[in-house]
Amino acid sequence: MSAVDDLITEFAKLPGIGRKTAQRLTFHLLQQPPDRLRRLASALVSASDKVRACPECGNLAEGERCEICRDPRRDQAILCVVEEPSGVLVMERSGEFRGRYHVLGGHLDPLSGIGPDALRLDLLLRRVQGGEIREVILATNPSMEGEVTATYVQQLLSGTDVRVTRLARGLPVGGDLEYVDGVTLAHALVARQEVR
Amino acid sequence: MSAVDDLITEFAKLPGIGRKTAQRLTFHLLQQPPDRLRRLASALVSASDKVRACPECGNLAEGERCEICRDPRRDQAILCVVEEPSGVLVMERSGEFRGRYHVLGGHLDPLSGIGPDALRLDLLLRRVQGGEIREVILATNPSMEGEVTATYVQQLLSGTDVRVTRLARGLPVGGDLEYVDGVTLAHALVARQEVR
Repeated sequence: MSAVDDLITEFAKLPGIGRKTAQRLTFHLLQQPPDRLRRLASALVSASDKVRACPECGNLAEGERCEICRDPRRDQAILCVVEEPSGVLVMERSGEFRGRYHVLGGHLDPLSGIGPDALRLDLLLRRVQGGEIREVILATNPSMEGEVTATYVQQLLSGTDVRVTRLARGLPVGGDLEYVDGVTLAHALVARQEVR
Repeated sequence: MSAVDDLITEFAKLPGIGRKTAQRLTFHLLQQPPDRLRRLASALVSASDKVRACPECGNLAEGERCEICRDPRRDQAILCVVEEPSGVLVMERSGEFRGRYHVLGGHLDPLSGIGPDALRLDLLLRRVQGGEIREVILATNPSMEGEVTATYVQQLLSGTDVRVTRLARGLPVGGDLEYVDGVTLAHALVARQEVR
């Protein structure tokens, strides 16, 4: 059955979705009223038509610039550097950040041939050299590649006079001490805070 | 961002896909070349246009009847009763079954108001009364509802002279005895087979 197989194959290309899950999704959709499939299809087409990278920060944008770059209430003096547009979403969820973003478009990974030129680093330097920015917060992933990338950005900005900070490492809120790994615990211990 | 949110919302309606996974899928797709989104969209539209329920067995069909009902090499005398079209796929994967199928379209679930009228039971009885069928294999899910449904079908067919069988219960191949639940083990013990 070619139409069914095609749909399974397309679903199976998505990250974290194997052949069996793709089959389950396909069979589920085919049991639904036809407009369910069409709504998903048109949401895909519409996203593909409307969404572009923001030329300023690299975040996903539906207009000329992204929602955050267009928002005059966001603090122009603070820039948060993330790897991917999903990082913007995660940071926004915290509800704490009122500055703007810079999306690198990935992380340094020399073994896979991803060097500094593959990331939006020139643009970052140009934004910082623009003079309006006072602080750059590095919010790359807490992975090996994220650490390497953060260190690279830190060195890149060493010639400028902005303040460069990194997200604190420590215990996750709501976690159980028993499940915290040793490296995180070491960070939490070194950065321990006075309570009285 | 409405187009992005719409796509996340549509993905999140799929079974087993929560809001976070929907976001991950959406952000992944939006990082891909635009034709990736369009291929998924057109696979959805094409499946929605072409796929119908087979009027004979209830399986998914792209033509007038499904592939299996159209295949003259399939044994017309053996009918395998499954709950959903996905059951056909699973049975076919075993490579052992050469008969045809009857898809009930669900299982009996009186608490949710799903009685015999909601399933394709009349059609099953009519097929069996056609006279060509010698054996009906019950392959409903090994769940409470599946068991109840199988028992109901068994009683429904008690007035006919077909042989009614059920899939064997026992140890899953490749499993570890330690992880087998007590009920399965009890079935495996009762249905133990002579080896010499």
